[in-house]
Amino acid sequence: MSKEIHNNNSGLVKDIIIGMSDGLTVPFALTAGLSGVLNTTHLIIVSGLAEIAAGCISMGLGGYLAGESEEYDTELQREYNEIETAPQLELQEVEDILTNMGVEQTLSKQVALQISKDKNRWADFMMKLELEMEKPSKNRAAKSASTIALSYLVGGFIPLFPYIIIHDSKQALYLSCIVTIIALIIFGYLKSKATGQPIVKGTLKVTVTGIVAATAAFLLAKAVS
Amino acid sequence: MSKEIHNNNSGLVKDIIIGMSDGLTVPFALTAGLSGVLNTTHLIIVSGLAEIAAGCISMGLGGYLAGESEEYDTELQREYNEIETAPQLELQEVEDILTNMGVEQTLSKQVALQISKDKNRWADFMMKLELEMEKPSKNRAAKSASTIALSYLVGGFIPLFPYIIIHDSKQALYLSCIVTIIALIIFGYLKSKATGQPIVKGTLKVTVTGIVAATAAFLLAKAVS
Repeated sequence: MSKEIHNNNSGLVKDIIIGMSDGLTVPFALTAGLSGVLNTTHLIIVSGLAEIAAGCISMGLGGYLAGESEEYDTELQREYNEIETAPQLELQEVEDILTNMGVEQTLSKQVALQISKDKNRWADFMMKLELEMEKPSKNRAAKSASTIALSYLVGGFIPLFPYIIIHDSKQALYLSCIVTIIALIIFGYLKSKATGQPIVKGTLKVTVTGIVAATAAFLLAKAVS
Repeated sequence: MSKEIHNNNSGLVKDIIIGMSDGLTVPFALTAGLSGVLNTTHLIIVSGLAEIAAGCISMGLGGYLAGESEEYDTELQREYNEIETAPQLELQEVEDILTNMGVEQTLSKQVALQISKDKNRWADFMMKLELEMEKPSKNRAAKSASTIALSYLVGGFIPLFPYIIIHDSKQALYLSCIVTIIALIIFGYLKSKATGQPIVKGTLKVTVTGIVAATAAFLLAKAVS
């Protein structure tokens, strides 16, 4: 069954990756930045929680409302209109697409005529091959939004919890760095596996992004304080 | 030229939308949240700057390194391997895809044979129509990353600057709400135009997401303080 070993990079895994990437990185960097200018952790926790709430809602609700399916529907409607008002042009476009794929012109014409017998298939063909747009799955939007938000939440609590259990901000920072870097390595490894990237390179990229963001936030916070 | 009025939803506009959505929302919500628990603005500014730095780097560098093109290359290589090792199966898949489009079986077979004469076109066909993956543009990655980061930066400074020019956190919050909500409305309007969504609905969605995120962060920060 070697046919079936394509990466089943399902929507769920993608959503977890989207939420977790930012969730691990931004709260880590923000709390690290503040730990450089605050001695106790109370305000770091408040900031961290406010950031996690903001990030969850921006990514989750924002993504849910982003209207990808409306964008698709608008373009699809335009294709149907074009099929109605300029069928010869649209037919020619199907032919041209097939010819560009290496199909002989006479055969392209026959295939185009067959596809154009069903307007739904015709419009679908144009969406995929002219506009290169994939149909967004409508009933996945809510599930996708909550997966992204939850992954952001889980990711965000990993760098934050050391500040909740340790009162001294410097010591909390050390623990936060340790657990977050370990989490970034594990997440980077799983992400590389899921997306078929080279493991070491993929893991390094995720980890380095988190460390660079935290270092930048730390130095910037120090500089302006 | 009615053929050409499809939304030219270019990569640049998409990148600006990606960066600006989060840039306007998260720093707005974070600073609003902190303004509820801090009387002066100094720490709000530090937090806001740290967050903007973290967000820029997470979205920009993170997006740059995300390895979409590597994921595509991995799958493409797999298609080439399958074409080498199981050409009959792959040929059957091309046929099936065409048959599902409404093309007669005998014609599908002919077309599949013609496409399979050129392995690059064959693999390209499978990527587009079996895996529904679009080829990511490699030399756009760096430009895309910097556009996203810059848009996040610009978006983030809109809610933050009132705290820089006004010392009292409550008054700064009022000004931040006014300018950010105006910015969200303008951005929502432009985003709706660019993505072909209904203007009023699209504008409302963007604005509501920002307001909900800021309200949640404000209430959460109050609750834990």
